[in-house]
Amino acid sequence: MPEIPVSHPRRASLLARKRLVDAAAAGMLADSALIAHGRGEAFDYLLGEKTCPAANLAIREAAARLTAAEHPIISVNGNAVALAADDLLRCAALLGCPIEVNIYYRTAARMKALLGYLNGRKAAIKTGAPPTGWGKKRWQEVVENILILGEDADGIIAGLEGPRAVCCRNGIEKADTILVPLEDGDRCSALVALGKEVIVVDLNPISRTARIATITIVDELSRMAPQLIANLSEQTQQPLEEWDNDAARQGALQVMLQSLERDN
Amino acid sequence: MPEIPVSHPRRASLLARKRLVDAAAAGMLADSALIAHGRGEAFDYLLGEKTCPAANLAIREAAARLTAAEHPIISVNGNAVALAADDLLRCAALLGCPIEVNIYYRTAARMKALLGYLNGRKAAIKTGAPPTGWGKKRWQEVVENILILGEDADGIIAGLEGPRAVCCRNGIEKADTILVPLEDGDRCSALVALGKEVIVVDLNPISRTARIATITIVDELSRMAPQLIANLSEQTQQPLEEWDNDAARQGALQVMLQSLERDN
Repeated sequence: MPEIPVSHPRRASLLARKRLVDAAAAGMLADSALIAHGRGEAFDYLLGEKTCPAANLAIREAAARLTAAEHPIISVNGNAVALAADDLLRCAALLGCPIEVNIYYRTAARMKALLGYLNGRKAAIKTGAPPTGWGKKRWQEVVENILILGEDADGIIAGLEGPRAVCCRNGIEKADTILVPLEDGDRCSALVALGKEVIVVDLNPISRTARIATITIVDELSRMAPQLIANLSEQTQQPLEEWDNDAARQGALQVMLQSLERDN
Repeated sequence: MPEIPVSHPRRASLLARKRLVDAAAAGMLADSALIAHGRGEAFDYLLGEKTCPAANLAIREAAARLTAAEHPIISVNGNAVALAADDLLRCAALLGCPIEVNIYYRTAARMKALLGYLNGRKAAIKTGAPPTGWGKKRWQEVVENILILGEDADGIIAGLEGPRAVCCRNGIEKADTILVPLEDGDRCSALVALGKEVIVVDLNPISRTARIATITIVDELSRMAPQLIANLSEQTQQPLEEWDNDAARQGALQVMLQSLERDN
């Protein structure tokens, strides 16, 4: 792909697209991963490629729940790694939780590419600048301690069949609260049925995943991730007693409706 | 990709996706072509994956204008070939017009793959069943006569710069009416500025292309193509004196708004 000018109004979207294309070339993605990304792009276009107020609230609540959880985890697929590996590793460091690579079209080559990439980024982040308020040494320690799971598929997501049920026993199986960007409907449903709190990032506010999840952040993953980090760094917020997830979805839906109606 | 069950409710969409993935593997597509397809999928999801009444009217008008044109042409990129090569060749046969392969990310390898594929499909269609009302011999003749252009980039689209301006002199440059599914905004604008009638197929009813085109068919290309063939076969319709393209777009937009609002 050609260079993207710094002044381009859709630069962030084009950079995200480039990360996906690069990840595909590196063997990290399934065949249809770019198509899934394109579907997200269309909804983001309707969102105006901005984090909406409803998403901001959902990000804050997600940070509070992940912080309060006993066994939080971040589950990533190829697209999540391509879009936001660095920031998701930073979230794992701040939470002291593992990251599990969990993909539907599981092949040894893809798992190796994804685990290798995450381990490389972990090393880079360890020696990079720590977030505000963190000393260099403590940051290096927490990054060093991030467990990157996925290789041993020794666990199971009860209620699913076939390759989609595979997970790590000390990862998703044990977790009480899961940040799982870009999840599919069946798996989201199974995780919720197991009593876990499931936090998804989904640009389609009317998808099955968006409807089923405990918390739905209707936003673009690489755009919301720095805000999740900011909220996790503060760690002042307690989870709300009642979270109205339909309101979170509908807030984003309203923005999309307005952008379609503006033209009508 | 795994086999798609015949009973799957989204079978047509998944088959279209498979055609794109296969075309990418065959070297026919640019890096970001799958992402563009995914964007379309999202809008088609909002359309309910059905041809809406406004699109039916636009298809009928498109058939009338193409039939009435002095120099009609069908311009295809990689995605159009992947989705609907056979039906677009049939349209070219019915119209007695050329097909021009015209791609933005022009490389010799992609042009060769696309031209080779189209020529192969032309041979297959020639010996296949003719449309209703056509004798076998006459059908073979009109298919044989389809010119597949694109190799000689000896023309120019005035008003554009760089590789996007390249076209064939006896193709797009000469044409008065162009069916160009999946066109980008800049090129659509330049073609309209040259006084050509530009008929686009675009699932995003608020895209620049959709707004600028002479006729905008808001529909999925492989779904609308058989209907275009049916309309071309009849050849009874005269072009309308006044075509309200905003109404065509807004008809589709209303369907999308309703599917978003249903959930609200």
